[in-house]
Amino acid sequence: MPKLINDTFIRTLLKQPVTRTPVWMMRQAGRYLPEYRKVREQAGSFMDLCTNPELACEVTLQPLERFAFDAAILFSDILTIPDAMGLGLTFTEGEGPKFSRPIKTAADIHNLKNPDPEGELRYVMDAVRLIRKNLHGRVPLIGFSGSPWTLATYMVEGGTSKSFAKVKGLMYEQPQLMHLLLDKLSVAVAAYLNAQIAAGAQTVMVFDTWGGALSTEDYAEFSLHYARKVRSLLNTTVAGQQIPTVLFSKGGGLWLESMADSGYDALGLDWQTNIQQARQRVGAKVALQGNLDPVALYAKPEVIVEKVKAILQQYGNGSGHVFNLGHGILPDINPDHVKAMVDAVHHYSPAYHQQ
Amino acid sequence: MPKLINDTFIRTLLKQPVTRTPVWMMRQAGRYLPEYRKVREQAGSFMDLCTNPELACEVTLQPLERFAFDAAILFSDILTIPDAMGLGLTFTEGEGPKFSRPIKTAADIHNLKNPDPEGELRYVMDAVRLIRKNLHGRVPLIGFSGSPWTLATYMVEGGTSKSFAKVKGLMYEQPQLMHLLLDKLSVAVAAYLNAQIAAGAQTVMVFDTWGGALSTEDYAEFSLHYARKVRSLLNTTVAGQQIPTVLFSKGGGLWLESMADSGYDALGLDWQTNIQQARQRVGAKVALQGNLDPVALYAKPEVIVEKVKAILQQYGNGSGHVFNLGHGILPDINPDHVKAMVDAVHHYSPAYHQQ
Repeated sequence: MPKLINDTFIRTLLKQPVTRTPVWMMRQAGRYLPEYRKVREQAGSFMDLCTNPELACEVTLQPLERFAFDAAILFSDILTIPDAMGLGLTFTEGEGPKFSRPIKTAADIHNLKNPDPEGELRYVMDAVRLIRKNLHGRVPLIGFSGSPWTLATYMVEGGTSKSFAKVKGLMYEQPQLMHLLLDKLSVAVAAYLNAQIAAGAQTVMVFDTWGGALSTEDYAEFSLHYARKVRSLLNTTVAGQQIPTVLFSKGGGLWLESMADSGYDALGLDWQTNIQQARQRVGAKVALQGNLDPVALYAKPEVIVEKVKAILQQYGNGSGHVFNLGHGILPDINPDHVKAMVDAVHHYSPAYHQQ
Repeated sequence: MPKLINDTFIRTLLKQPVTRTPVWMMRQAGRYLPEYRKVREQAGSFMDLCTNPELACEVTLQPLERFAFDAAILFSDILTIPDAMGLGLTFTEGEGPKFSRPIKTAADIHNLKNPDPEGELRYVMDAVRLIRKNLHGRVPLIGFSGSPWTLATYMVEGGTSKSFAKVKGLMYEQPQLMHLLLDKLSVAVAAYLNAQIAAGAQTVMVFDTWGGALSTEDYAEFSLHYARKVRSLLNTTVAGQQIPTVLFSKGGGLWLESMADSGYDALGLDWQTNIQQARQRVGAKVALQGNLDPVALYAKPEVIVEKVKAILQQYGNGSGHVFNLGHGILPDINPDHVKAMVDAVHHYSPAYHQQ
């Protein structure tokens, strides 16, 4: 593997000194880029693109040609594991993911098979290997998975949900069965992330997109507990190098203290949370990643620059802040506005890293 | 006006001693009740029902016949004010509210007229008067309005929104214009609530459904600031009686301290927030209303009873807790499950109110 040239992102997640704040963007390889839309058309369906390592590699690298991002993130989807478990994932335009065989019975949970990361999910590992090779050490590669709770919501609901009536019904009425499902998913997620690390991922991130739909107690019992279990099963030292880990629970701003105690090196913040207050609450325990409102990128560049400056100032001096959006970039954002954001982070952040 | 017989709800909002925890439910007059669906069919459209004081009165009283609720809430919609301002409100089945003439230009904001609560909105005041009369003092009547910020989201977006791109665009790029809109709405909301109080509302509640879509700073500047302005303009003493006020910002759990300082007597809590932690954070400043996850009402009655007991225990001893859901009841809940919740509050709460 080529040596890492720009290690600002990794050092920041580990709270080691850096000379400026690193920046990347959730969904940075995506529909807002015309060159992505071109490859997507070639590929066929969204899953056709995800399962084609060459094309997945191509779109992963695209945003690095335009913007001075400090990390690449594997182009994939959070629902690859349930798909590999046999639930039959498809994406319909405008409606999001659908499972043709969602979980409906206790037997469905008992019979779930643990997918082989180098078997059914080999296309992901092949993509990771290919991206690492083609990155030539420019920036680190982030691997990722959905959290056990978030995967469970899609698997039980059959797709996205507004009220989460089915998965919460299972949680309220048959908590032991819910725990069995989450336990199985934790093992599968950890094996999947470990395989990504073995294939070359230099950081791994767990996306708990729907943790915020839970009450405080249910979040602790059904979401964070299993994110912690995943973390405990990860092999995070590779050839003497530490692989940092990031946990992002959207809507989890109330629970930062317990998240900071869950073993991850960094927490992703959505845009609701003030990053200064978040830093005060988590202390030195974790680095923080975030948290510009994705909608702010519709605004004119002068406004974007002011928003970037405000977030840098809120975090304040020292290492431990990875600049990012508070959620994925929206598909109709003007790429020039992304450039305004990235350039502002590069321009204004060194002042916060003077020794 | 007849004397109030059951004043447990009012006394609780004012943190005066009571013998048990009062209970009501957001959207308690609604589609989960077959008798509501019957009246709704008679009425025609949803707005036809809202604008018909006799039918609005009838559906307001329906849930009190079934359940031992401690308050009635005016049957109406949060968007009556923008409709009266001329934006043209309609409801389409499954898609929610739509404005045929949303705000698109600065001139649209400058030209907004302040509706007359006893003119364009007289149907609301007539409903309040009729409900008060027909309640015969059984329980107090709650009046309500959307918050200025929440009204603005619908007025600028033209309906519900996922990303709030238009209204946040206005906020980011033309903040002075956004402030002008919110200022006008604050005056209109206060006049509307004062008219409801004059017509007989014994408590008023401000629903800030979309406050949680904002960042911490933007919530303070564009939502809470105007909720506070509304509060400062309310006439809350009628014939020597205090009219309690309630503020509910869905997704606002991070901001309870500043909400508790905004002049309202009580805060509504969504289900994400733990009510014990909320009580510790707000101290003696405000009462709290909430906060069972509406989805929990799908569960079997034994589970519902346990959830009710847990919330009562979390709040703990003493006055200041109004039991409610953390958001409106869902339209396909079994009414027997509502009865299980109400009965459990009546059965288990007196233990927390022994002198």
